[in-house]
Amino acid sequence: MSKTFFPPPGSAAEAEEGRTLAPKFDVDGLVTCVATDAASGDVLMVAHMNAEALARTIETGEAWYFSRSRQKLWRKGETSGHVQRVTEMRIDCDQDAVWIKVEQAGAGACHTGRRSCFYRAVPLGTRADAAVLEFRDGEKRFDPKAVYGKPEK
Amino acid sequence: MSKTFFPPPGSAAEAEEGRTLAPKFDVDGLVTCVATDAASGDVLMVAHMNAEALARTIETGEAWYFSRSRQKLWRKGETSGHVQRVTEMRIDCDQDAVWIKVEQAGAGACHTGRRSCFYRAVPLGTRADAAVLEFRDGEKRFDPKAVYGKPEK
Repeated sequence: MSKTFFPPPGSAAEAEEGRTLAPKFDVDGLVTCVATDAASGDVLMVAHMNAEALARTIETGEAWYFSRSRQKLWRKGETSGHVQRVTEMRIDCDQDAVWIKVEQAGAGACHTGRRSCFYRAVPLGTRADAAVLEFRDGEKRFDPKAVYGKPEK
Repeated sequence: MSKTFFPPPGSAAEAEEGRTLAPKFDVDGLVTCVATDAASGDVLMVAHMNAEALARTIETGEAWYFSRSRQKLWRKGETSGHVQRVTEMRIDCDQDAVWIKVEQAGAGACHTGRRSCFYRAVPLGTRADAAVLEFRDGEKRFDPKAVYGKPEK
């Protein structure tokens, strides 16, 4: 069994009103993490952290995640150099989601080569089953093949 | 079986570079949704959408979610009146996360009475297992007991 990084979750009132960090990890041992650009406020990516990734992020001030596809701890930028320096971390009411504001090193956060993973808009007020995505801020800022031997995510 | 709202996910290349909205729902039939304040850029909440919630959000321009705790479709603000008008929706590279920018009606998005669910900061550069949360923008703007008969979330 691995090191215990955090106390177990308390009551709903303790989770919501307390000062103890006691994350509520899901059945896979993960919390959701939203990373926004500290300068622009744009959402760069949504990923997951297990207890070790969350602890390392807190202790080092650099973003660590847990890759669900690769089932391993993942220091953001370990392959690409596109590390994320965390300027602020927040946790939500029920302590199952984390928001980090980051200074994104390098050209972008997305493994496709974009600045953000959210480079397509979904039109509103239309039939959902006929929605055609619109590219926004979708230019590739780096060549994923040159940066990654294989996809980071 | 319920109505099919979206086509099934295609290849990774189609998901990342295509214009077809084909969300990758998880084993519970959900995608993650991040709602940010259209004016301030602050993350207001992280929640989940099933296919019907996503379709209704697209078609109505108001945020619908799926409550995991109550296992039901949930129009944000249906109890509190604190509806969210969506000004923009983005989908991420692998189409398993949605970012909506919203105009938040009423006093706040959080069922605890705050503007945002992310009203506590986690200190960085400290031991994770000894982290003491710091309240930020944590004042309650409405009385949850007066607004909800029971918690909305």
